[in-house]
Amino acid sequence: MKQSQLFTRTQKEISKDEVSINAQLLIRAGFIDKLMAGTYTILPLGLRVMKKIEQIIREEMNAIDGQEIFMPTLHPKENWIKTGRWDSMDDLYKVKDSSGREMALGPTHEEVVVPLMKRFISSYKDLPFAAYQFQNKFRMELRSKSGILRGREFMMKDLYSFHADAGDLDAYYEKAKQAYLKVFERVGLKNETYLTYASGGSFSKYSHEFQTLTEAGEDSIYVCERCRIAINKEIIDDLEHSCPECHEGNLDEKKAIEVGNIFKLMTKFSAPFDLKAKDENGEDIGIVMGCYGIGLGRLMGTIVEVLHDEKGMMWPEAVAPFKVHLLSLGENEEAQKIYQSLVEKGIEVLYDDRDTSAGEKFADSDLIGIPYRVVVSKKSLASGGVEVKRRDESESRIVRTEELSNILK
Amino acid sequence: MKQSQLFTRTQKEISKDEVSINAQLLIRAGFIDKLMAGTYTILPLGLRVMKKIEQIIREEMNAIDGQEIFMPTLHPKENWIKTGRWDSMDDLYKVKDSSGREMALGPTHEEVVVPLMKRFISSYKDLPFAAYQFQNKFRMELRSKSGILRGREFMMKDLYSFHADAGDLDAYYEKAKQAYLKVFERVGLKNETYLTYASGGSFSKYSHEFQTLTEAGEDSIYVCERCRIAINKEIIDDLEHSCPECHEGNLDEKKAIEVGNIFKLMTKFSAPFDLKAKDENGEDIGIVMGCYGIGLGRLMGTIVEVLHDEKGMMWPEAVAPFKVHLLSLGENEEAQKIYQSLVEKGIEVLYDDRDTSAGEKFADSDLIGIPYRVVVSKKSLASGGVEVKRRDESESRIVRTEELSNILK
Repeated sequence: MKQSQLFTRTQKEISKDEVSINAQLLIRAGFIDKLMAGTYTILPLGLRVMKKIEQIIREEMNAIDGQEIFMPTLHPKENWIKTGRWDSMDDLYKVKDSSGREMALGPTHEEVVVPLMKRFISSYKDLPFAAYQFQNKFRMELRSKSGILRGREFMMKDLYSFHADAGDLDAYYEKAKQAYLKVFERVGLKNETYLTYASGGSFSKYSHEFQTLTEAGEDSIYVCERCRIAINKEIIDDLEHSCPECHEGNLDEKKAIEVGNIFKLMTKFSAPFDLKAKDENGEDIGIVMGCYGIGLGRLMGTIVEVLHDEKGMMWPEAVAPFKVHLLSLGENEEAQKIYQSLVEKGIEVLYDDRDTSAGEKFADSDLIGIPYRVVVSKKSLASGGVEVKRRDESESRIVRTEELSNILK
Repeated sequence: MKQSQLFTRTQKEISKDEVSINAQLLIRAGFIDKLMAGTYTILPLGLRVMKKIEQIIREEMNAIDGQEIFMPTLHPKENWIKTGRWDSMDDLYKVKDSSGREMALGPTHEEVVVPLMKRFISSYKDLPFAAYQFQNKFRMELRSKSGILRGREFMMKDLYSFHADAGDLDAYYEKAKQAYLKVFERVGLKNETYLTYASGGSFSKYSHEFQTLTEAGEDSIYVCERCRIAINKEIIDDLEHSCPECHEGNLDEKKAIEVGNIFKLMTKFSAPFDLKAKDENGEDIGIVMGCYGIGLGRLMGTIVEVLHDEKGMMWPEAVAPFKVHLLSLGENEEAQKIYQSLVEKGIEVLYDDRDTSAGEKFADSDLIGIPYRVVVSKKSLASGGVEVKRRDESESRIVRTEELSNILK
């Protein structure tokens, strides 16, 4: 894409009420725009990142036999009364239509997915299976200070699994754990992300979170480097400050962001909706469930918190808005040819063809944080080609134009 | 995909309160589920159709330089007060948080996209450009009788274009018109869909709708076959019952569904937000806008209304959930091999490997409406291969297994 045609542009300064690094950088670089606290528009560069994150998650959910669906935002009050959450959930948005009918704006979808499955589950033979969606969720966050890490509305992947017994749920839960670790590895957060034991609620001893280390985190976790797991501070006392796997007590307290969580719901939500199946003997069995969430905007924000420097963002290739940022410094003819040839080879290029200073182009390129910067100038051409620098390198090198696409492959 | 693994299944009967053909067939075939009136979950088969429709629209919007974004659902009341629509729009859902702050659930996004663009437009040089999104919209429809043609919430593509003057808008509007016609052609509704003159509101003489002929339509249009255009009944009197292009008066009244509309907003929304730019002389100019909408669920429902028979749906290849429905009649070994080989060739196959009767498999296949049905049975193998039938053909023919993929290419 030609940068001159992109309707967004970068900004040097933004409003002082934006205190989080992720929102500051994403707003300055033109990836997002703040409509009101906790409510953001995703702009073209940001949406390219979100769509790549979405596709990575989709592939990993499909790999564990998740079937994609799309559920509504407006939920009937009756369903929320049934689970008791109409009154117990403080951050639930409620809306009324002119006939007086009350509805909830879905903050999660157990109240929809469970009654839905009554239509499709009657026998143990219908089990197990899992369904997931990408959907905007709504939560009444009044003080949102952490940019896109916590919002009034936020894009989330939520997967729900359905099983005939707890053993089958356990087996699937382990597969989901591995799928989650793969997602965080693919988006570039492998080293910083820990499977974390957390409170299990009334039905399970533990649930599991995936926590990514960064000073911007709102959570405190205790890390066991030996097992590469962590424990959420909320249960560290129950565990007597030791690792639940190796029982070692030498754990480091660190700040982290919860980038995903998985939960054994057991029959907590199937029971109120009377979702059950016949077993081999024709007896009723209650359906055992798991749920598995990842916030996409939060994940994008976490990547920014972890991977940036004082100049701007540093996107991992798998989720970068483009692979290559091609900068033309007053030398448009050769740059245009290179742009065409890279695009023809299927390489995603943002081509800075704007009529602005070299200094501005370099600063914008560092801020936007595309993995490869390729500079075409009279000077580079005189030296035999183009200047190539990865965003995380400090020095560029000259590469012959003919060899460029091999390096970028 | 193996049909035995699909969590949905077909139904013979559904609730009698579902009067529209589109909802009846889509629910029976397991493409959608009704949560409450006008509110549907999109199930795996339905989502495959929706995603294909989405991708066709995305490609055509990108082809006219649309830049994809994603705006919030929760809109600040202030923005809707500014345009006067907080009070004038009857079907606006309003929601309040616990601090007393009121918000609208977006039924359309002028109130968000216009203030957003104040950040990016300052000079005529920033113009023209266009931004679009796929977003769930919310409208307080109390009596929804037309299935997914009209809902309380519905997925919509909305594009907004920004121009320095009316001439530039006119030129873009013509391009958008052609892009819309391409969309309806690609989804299989070319012959039934008419560019339709409709009321322009306070700023333009006409707007344009795209109306698809079907008895299920809520609109009445007058068709001029000579010009292949139509006139919405609402303005036929103003036009003295004649075609605005050839001035012929011999027009047929027909029922149709509005599948898209495009509108010259001029400065109607830029003015209240004071969205303007400097011209070449440094003088302020008001930004001239157009908006362009297509409802994706409505489009899916319209395809069902137009393309079905008494047995079920008949999907055009471009939007079908799968290209091939492979039915194994007690002959799983050979069918399994054929399934593998088609999947390896990149052909999308739904493989009915279930242990049910031939009659049920044929009935389900007709209901689901995948373009090609391929039957593998002892009988077909004895005759030298597999039975192939297009959904719109009445007779099948025997095709040698080795030739199957050539026929399906």
